[in-house]
Amino acid sequence: MSRALLLIDLQEGMDSPLWGARNNPTAEDNAARLLAAFRAGGAPVFHVRHFSKRPTSPLHPDKGGTAIKTVVAPRGGEPVYDKDTNSAFIGTDLEADLRKAGVEALVVAGLSTPQCISTSVRMAANLGFETWLAHDACAAFETHARHDWADGIAPLSADEIHRMEISVLHGEFCRAMRTDTIIGALTT
Amino acid sequence: MSRALLLIDLQEGMDSPLWGARNNPTAEDNAARLLAAFRAGGAPVFHVRHFSKRPTSPLHPDKGGTAIKTVVAPRGGEPVYDKDTNSAFIGTDLEADLRKAGVEALVVAGLSTPQCISTSVRMAANLGFETWLAHDACAAFETHARHDWADGIAPLSADEIHRMEISVLHGEFCRAMRTDTIIGALTT
Repeated sequence: MSRALLLIDLQEGMDSPLWGARNNPTAEDNAARLLAAFRAGGAPVFHVRHFSKRPTSPLHPDKGGTAIKTVVAPRGGEPVYDKDTNSAFIGTDLEADLRKAGVEALVVAGLSTPQCISTSVRMAANLGFETWLAHDACAAFETHARHDWADGIAPLSADEIHRMEISVLHGEFCRAMRTDTIIGALTT
Repeated sequence: MSRALLLIDLQEGMDSPLWGARNNPTAEDNAARLLAAFRAGGAPVFHVRHFSKRPTSPLHPDKGGTAIKTVVAPRGGEPVYDKDTNSAFIGTDLEADLRKAGVEALVVAGLSTPQCISTSVRMAANLGFETWLAHDACAAFETHARHDWADGIAPLSADEIHRMEISVLHGEFCRAMRTDTIIGALTT
């Protein structure tokens, strides 16, 4: 089964303090290790970038933060998809290109766990791709616990949000695995 | 703006003990109140049913549990969409039919919060529908906290999963509102 790496929204603008406290500070390093393993094995790699339509977003094109972080920057002919929603599959040619390339399975990593990662993993699974989620190569921000909600909700940390969302995804939409486990599975 | 009601997976098979403990026992009654309000206002209603491909699922067609619960059963010409993934928009004509009907906004309710509701709300938002989520007309099951995960995760109750997922969706993908608030907004 042809398995591709899908790296989502690992962009400079994600370092803005506007997002709030983050968990998994080594997510980018783990994503870089996955990237190196896929490149070493000659397996396909697909990059996704977010271009926000919200003028205040650190990922708005005018804010200078849309570049992919150096540690996981695309190389050579690796395709890059630009989106303005959470799902990597909406408004992009990603699904069509994965099918053209004969990809049936994905490894997903990137930012942020409850938003673009969760939404993209859910759609990948529902579109029929067998999906592994590198949970230690993803991270969440605390921000979303701070949205107002009429009935109130206790503040949740980035780590609580991350673990909760991974727990919801695992078993139903994907297998949540450590980067080391995935790299081991790729090379055996 | 034309707003439609989207009721998801409120089926007899959801009462099976196989799903584990559930929260929000009045979710169906709240969904029924929304349904009555939409019918009274002559606003469009769309029903979605799940037909599982897993032979052990209470929602597998052979298990006799795919009927929509009586309290929210479709009436007259209200359209019903059958799906076999989590998203109401994948493998169905729902999006095309909503656009044909001129629907730009949705009220979503049904089962279960972290799975088909979350996945459908995320896609609804990413497809451009302005979405209100009737959080007290949705419910979660504890089951998914029991999936094995290599790194272990503390068991989470149905209510913890429900509140967490609603918190993640609210503000980014939808407005999470009480049934009473939605009915009030529809009639004013």
